[in-house]
Amino acid sequence: MPEPDPPATRPKVVVVGGGFGGLEAVKALRKAPVDVTLVDRRNHHLFQPLLYQVATAGLAPASIAAPIRGILTEQDNAETLLAEVTGVDFDHRVVRVRDDHDHELSYDYLVLAVGAVTSYFGNHEWRHYAPGLKSLDEAIEIRRRVLLAFEQAEREDDPLEREALLTFVVVGGGPTGVEMAGALAELSRFVLARDFRHINPELTRVVLLEGMDDVLTMFDAGLRKKAVAQLQELGVEVRTGAMVTHIDERGVTIGDEDGREQIAARNVLWTAGVRANPLCETLGVDTDKGGRVAVRDDCTLPERSNVFAIGDMARFEQDGKPLPGVSPVAMQQGRHVADCIARDLAGKPREPFRYTDKGTMATIGRSRAIAQTARVKLSGFTAWIAWLAVHLWYLIGFRSRLVVIISWAWSYFAYQRGSRLITGDRLIAGVPDADIEAALGEERDDDPA
Amino acid sequence: MPEPDPPATRPKVVVVGGGFGGLEAVKALRKAPVDVTLVDRRNHHLFQPLLYQVATAGLAPASIAAPIRGILTEQDNAETLLAEVTGVDFDHRVVRVRDDHDHELSYDYLVLAVGAVTSYFGNHEWRHYAPGLKSLDEAIEIRRRVLLAFEQAEREDDPLEREALLTFVVVGGGPTGVEMAGALAELSRFVLARDFRHINPELTRVVLLEGMDDVLTMFDAGLRKKAVAQLQELGVEVRTGAMVTHIDERGVTIGDEDGREQIAARNVLWTAGVRANPLCETLGVDTDKGGRVAVRDDCTLPERSNVFAIGDMARFEQDGKPLPGVSPVAMQQGRHVADCIARDLAGKPREPFRYTDKGTMATIGRSRAIAQTARVKLSGFTAWIAWLAVHLWYLIGFRSRLVVIISWAWSYFAYQRGSRLITGDRLIAGVPDADIEAALGEERDDDPA
Repeated sequence: MPEPDPPATRPKVVVVGGGFGGLEAVKALRKAPVDVTLVDRRNHHLFQPLLYQVATAGLAPASIAAPIRGILTEQDNAETLLAEVTGVDFDHRVVRVRDDHDHELSYDYLVLAVGAVTSYFGNHEWRHYAPGLKSLDEAIEIRRRVLLAFEQAEREDDPLEREALLTFVVVGGGPTGVEMAGALAELSRFVLARDFRHINPELTRVVLLEGMDDVLTMFDAGLRKKAVAQLQELGVEVRTGAMVTHIDERGVTIGDEDGREQIAARNVLWTAGVRANPLCETLGVDTDKGGRVAVRDDCTLPERSNVFAIGDMARFEQDGKPLPGVSPVAMQQGRHVADCIARDLAGKPREPFRYTDKGTMATIGRSRAIAQTARVKLSGFTAWIAWLAVHLWYLIGFRSRLVVIISWAWSYFAYQRGSRLITGDRLIAGVPDADIEAALGEERDDDPA
Repeated sequence: MPEPDPPATRPKVVVVGGGFGGLEAVKALRKAPVDVTLVDRRNHHLFQPLLYQVATAGLAPASIAAPIRGILTEQDNAETLLAEVTGVDFDHRVVRVRDDHDHELSYDYLVLAVGAVTSYFGNHEWRHYAPGLKSLDEAIEIRRRVLLAFEQAEREDDPLEREALLTFVVVGGGPTGVEMAGALAELSRFVLARDFRHINPELTRVVLLEGMDDVLTMFDAGLRKKAVAQLQELGVEVRTGAMVTHIDERGVTIGDEDGREQIAARNVLWTAGVRANPLCETLGVDTDKGGRVAVRDDCTLPERSNVFAIGDMARFEQDGKPLPGVSPVAMQQGRHVADCIARDLAGKPREPFRYTDKGTMATIGRSRAIAQTARVKLSGFTAWIAWLAVHLWYLIGFRSRLVVIISWAWSYFAYQRGSRLITGDRLIAGVPDADIEAALGEERDDDPA
């Protein structure tokens, strides 16, 4: 019998980032005649839209994160590397990575999908007092700070200090800020209400600050009004046109010389801005003011038809406007990239990418949400049910879905939260220090200078 | 209508420690005419018997821990204080506590239930290389180290280094060591087996070291043999009579000048010893060589009939032998203490405590366990089902139980683990440093000098 031919060398595809875009690209390449390496500095894919629920003790970290290796077990043409990408050399077609040591990965195709990080608009020191919400570590740290604030208030004698401990300020009126504010209000009013003896958690003040004239600007004006009404029902103070000018350990300052206001708060959360991963600045290509790299209509970098950039790190213009930084864009781009590579290998021409907007939704709390598509606008309970269905559908892995359903059903009927854990050694809330910086990780390092 | 009499001042009971003993004492006092304050430095009650499952990615931390406040919500005569106890002044009847600042709690009755910490028998520096398994933080840190070792092995070219990364040494052949060794063997053989491309996790070596001549010495000799056989079926190397004489970053040394053996291992876990919480040394009472305070037959300290010490921190002699440091002893003592206080207040004489041993069990892995009571000895599948039933029964809180059942069912049928998360920033396994010490916490500080 003749020996089989040795397999021809297959093109190497390196995908950087295991978020929505990168993972979708890898999965869409499962039948392509390529070898894929997915590089991420974390071992898990994170379902970011539910991160606020970890931060408010509603879900356990493991319920919204799945090990990347486990997701790709059955995909024989893909391997996973736990490492940090430090740079790219386009001319030599190598990615520089760091794990135990520095080394290089060569590629024929490169897919960059490294996402975005929290941005403080140049006020880098605010991150000490106002953590962002982009990683599991940050969510766990916020959970710790929030739960500790109630513990500390319970034993505090000074009424002003107690008030500051029970005041939570959320900066940023986008979906994450709205969801966070709603969940904090619910946590204090329903879940913690009966558990303390010296304080009344129902007196907790949750303030949502937005610098622009309205929250949730991606939604229709009628739905925005309904969202604000739903937040107010929960007791959230919604303050629009409120520019944050200073944050420190005492709280938040709004406004300038013409009218300054200080809100004393031991917990401030920052959801007001993101910018593209700092890796973008190192690529030697043009970036916009959000740090994003401009891409062509097939999602490639200018003059690099074998290098794709997708998701929150890329600026893709469609009908004259850049696409928003949301997961459906990243996922559709991930599938598009796989299609381009498959077409190249089959000798067919690539097609341009076009985003199909299937709608937007945001949840405000128990039975409260808003949702809109091109045709339909929903609010209240109906929108909330739609939100539940969509989020469960996209949660990767049957087990996560089942555990999340149970956790939610239990929270809904028992008014409880299943993950009220304070881990880590520090018993004192509010005062950040070098340790906490370590816990918060490097992702929020948006000022590499 | 006559004004009701102002309530008479009720006796104050301070309970230190929210483990099995302390929590049981508080709950048993729910109908007593007293005011109870439960002090713990953590906000959660921990179901320690399942801690090894968190360390091996089988269960999420929140599944085996419940917030103490939540457990005591309905108990109107109990409040909770998140603080560290730094000392007791018996003469002035006050407990010194530290939270944001140092202060004192006065008591009429004091129940000490502060448990035990990991002990390295004077080799304090070993804790850097061989973490113990007593807290959630330690379990999460061990999970991180174990999962990172596989990641690091996947990208390691040096075969000797790869072998060291895939060798796990568990020191201590008690129930925790046996359960940990079995779970590590299962994790590598069944769960991770298909997820790596460059290593074969089935080649992982799990070594269980015990200094004495047999493991699980609290069990009948026949059952011990069966336990060893079940461990070996899973591929665990069981080494008895193996005295550990040194541990460092390279691994473990067994034996002395007469015959020394080095096992190269990047992960060493320590379950070989515990001693009573260092607080015991500060009480000014006699302690035994395990650091435990001797108590009288009603669980009180000598000459202090209003101060009880229960659980792992207390040495209670029954029929001439000290009781073992297991949760049923602590729980029965907790109920006994509540009974003594109620009898005092009712003007009735106290009764002496007597421990009822309902049996012992240890699980070795999927479908493998041993169990014995005064009458029955079980092993294999039957013992495993008994183990499952008992552990689910005692897990506090309906929701935890349900989530654990689902997690276990899913693991059983899908050969997966639901909590394979690496959190924290360090990507490198094996090399401990100051950060890790912070993560591991103070509980293991068994050498206060």
